[in-house]
Amino acid sequence: MQFDTLRRDGNAVLIIDQTALPLQKRILALRTLDEAAQAIRDMRVRGAPLIGATAAYGVALAMREDASDEGLERALTQLAATRPTAVNLRWALARMQHVLADHPPNVRRLLAWGEADAIRAEDVAANQAIGEHGLAAIMKLKRDSRPLNVLTHCNAGALATCGWGTALAPIYLAHRRGIELHVWVSETRPRNQGLLTAWELEQVGIPYTLIADNAAGLLLARGHVDVVIVGADRIAANGDTANKIGTCLKALAAQAARVPFYVAAPWSTIDLECPRGTGIPIEERDASEQLRMVGTLPDGTVSTVELTDPGTPVWNPAFDVTPATLITGIITERGVHPVGGLPAV
Amino acid sequence: MQFDTLRRDGNAVLIIDQTALPLQKRILALRTLDEAAQAIRDMRVRGAPLIGATAAYGVALAMREDASDEGLERALTQLAATRPTAVNLRWALARMQHVLADHPPNVRRLLAWGEADAIRAEDVAANQAIGEHGLAAIMKLKRDSRPLNVLTHCNAGALATCGWGTALAPIYLAHRRGIELHVWVSETRPRNQGLLTAWELEQVGIPYTLIADNAAGLLLARGHVDVVIVGADRIAANGDTANKIGTCLKALAAQAARVPFYVAAPWSTIDLECPRGTGIPIEERDASEQLRMVGTLPDGTVSTVELTDPGTPVWNPAFDVTPATLITGIITERGVHPVGGLPAV
Repeated sequence: MQFDTLRRDGNAVLIIDQTALPLQKRILALRTLDEAAQAIRDMRVRGAPLIGATAAYGVALAMREDASDEGLERALTQLAATRPTAVNLRWALARMQHVLADHPPNVRRLLAWGEADAIRAEDVAANQAIGEHGLAAIMKLKRDSRPLNVLTHCNAGALATCGWGTALAPIYLAHRRGIELHVWVSETRPRNQGLLTAWELEQVGIPYTLIADNAAGLLLARGHVDVVIVGADRIAANGDTANKIGTCLKALAAQAARVPFYVAAPWSTIDLECPRGTGIPIEERDASEQLRMVGTLPDGTVSTVELTDPGTPVWNPAFDVTPATLITGIITERGVHPVGGLPAV
Repeated sequence: MQFDTLRRDGNAVLIIDQTALPLQKRILALRTLDEAAQAIRDMRVRGAPLIGATAAYGVALAMREDASDEGLERALTQLAATRPTAVNLRWALARMQHVLADHPPNVRRLLAWGEADAIRAEDVAANQAIGEHGLAAIMKLKRDSRPLNVLTHCNAGALATCGWGTALAPIYLAHRRGIELHVWVSETRPRNQGLLTAWELEQVGIPYTLIADNAAGLLLARGHVDVVIVGADRIAANGDTANKIGTCLKALAAQAARVPFYVAAPWSTIDLECPRGTGIPIEERDASEQLRMVGTLPDGTVSTVELTDPGTPVWNPAFDVTPATLITGIITERGVHPVGGLPAV
């Protein structure tokens, strides 16, 4: 893995502080349950699959502090409360609970690390399979006359996972196989995770162009995009998909321009208990995240700036729901599912 | 007029430097053709109607320097080259040329100021009429149970005109008449003109909430908006409308949510020589405008910050085209025109 978004180092878990990227690459060590929960809440780790894996390691850290039934319960509750939308978080915690619940504290300590390692390894494998299935789907859309032009939103790349990403997995795979590519990266206000995608692509050497979120409509209408691929934070049983705020606007513009729109996510992102998108809880975050930006000053130091009066009234939802009707297919490690055609578990 | 976006002071023209708002209110004096052209190019004045009026005053300033035929020609050419999309600029310059061309230099100097004053006064009157026609249209959409909820994009308010604005004119009028209102203001990256709209509404005391551009889809899907109103930079004869980048995404989301979508603009924004939107030139601006933001540092000073590597590849179109099929009606000083029903001149 090129990016090492999450790895164990003895009794600590090392993460890349994604709030500092792309301006600074800073590694943080998480040593306690509180530190793991805080890192997820503050979006130092983000991306549904990576949130799930980090939460699993958070349970392992918690077991070092208190592996009693109460300690396990407290860890699960605290971690579940950090972010409401990504179902992978709930899924990873349910899996940890299932594995640990019936064991005594000393066994829990050992099992917790093992299970977190397994979740991480499975995510890497899922990324690879998503890459293969996704690449087969999008290569049908490549025109001979130009590189395959992909539009993505937010960051569903290596930084959002433990491996090569979900939406970006087919892109990395195409690049390794010598297929000509160009990626349109939408900035993804208010937190600018598009800059994370740009940073990733820059490291690997894949050509890309950054656009403001607002530019996606004109871009698609002009025929510059062959396919849109995004990640997902929760997929309802009918295929309605919660993903980073702004996703549904891209889907509408893709439909208007008759450009295929794919969602790529591990199977664990599908919430079969949630029949449709209206049932997905949408996280609303603090106004300050919209009114502040981090950047480099002319003297080279990194600082936060306020864009306007910090008291400005703001509505800051972190996700929206793209109706299944706008989605061409959902790419998981099990294959490409035409929407409405998700098999029962 | 509350905002005084453009006024004559002896042989100078005073403008509000809109690149400094909302952090600082700074008045600039334009004294030469070059200064007027630069102010338009740098977006110190912006908004199609205000660009037109500023260009007219730019011709008046130019006539003080050189009122010969060559001087007039140079002024018209230089000002026309500042911004390509807003047709009001071309319209105002054509009008100045028509009035001045057949007169000797000493008469031109006098006539130029008078004609620029007339363009400004007519814009104020057009704003008022747009307010009346627009208010009649949107009041039909008010529900008894809540304030009228309007979504707007960019700034088509007082700061974009010489009076009370185009898209915001009905809102200001409703407020003066005691109608309960709430405005959803979309940030409008990359230049954040939504912050200008928020600043205006704050001065006047109209309730508003700022959203990231990405949040418009969820906002509309949830039924929080009764009507969308935006301005325009050029309207083709078939009703296709060029406006600030991101407008067409709002129109698509409004259509999906069955929310009426109005365009408000003076009649001079309609380009009857342009049959459809594909003929409208779309300005592309420098990458730096997307990669830099202005904000207030913790110590209170205002600074520009770089959000990422300044060499990042960027595509930065300033406008997009909303197809007439997505527009409920176009509000001008002459009335509300159902799209496709624009009368011939």
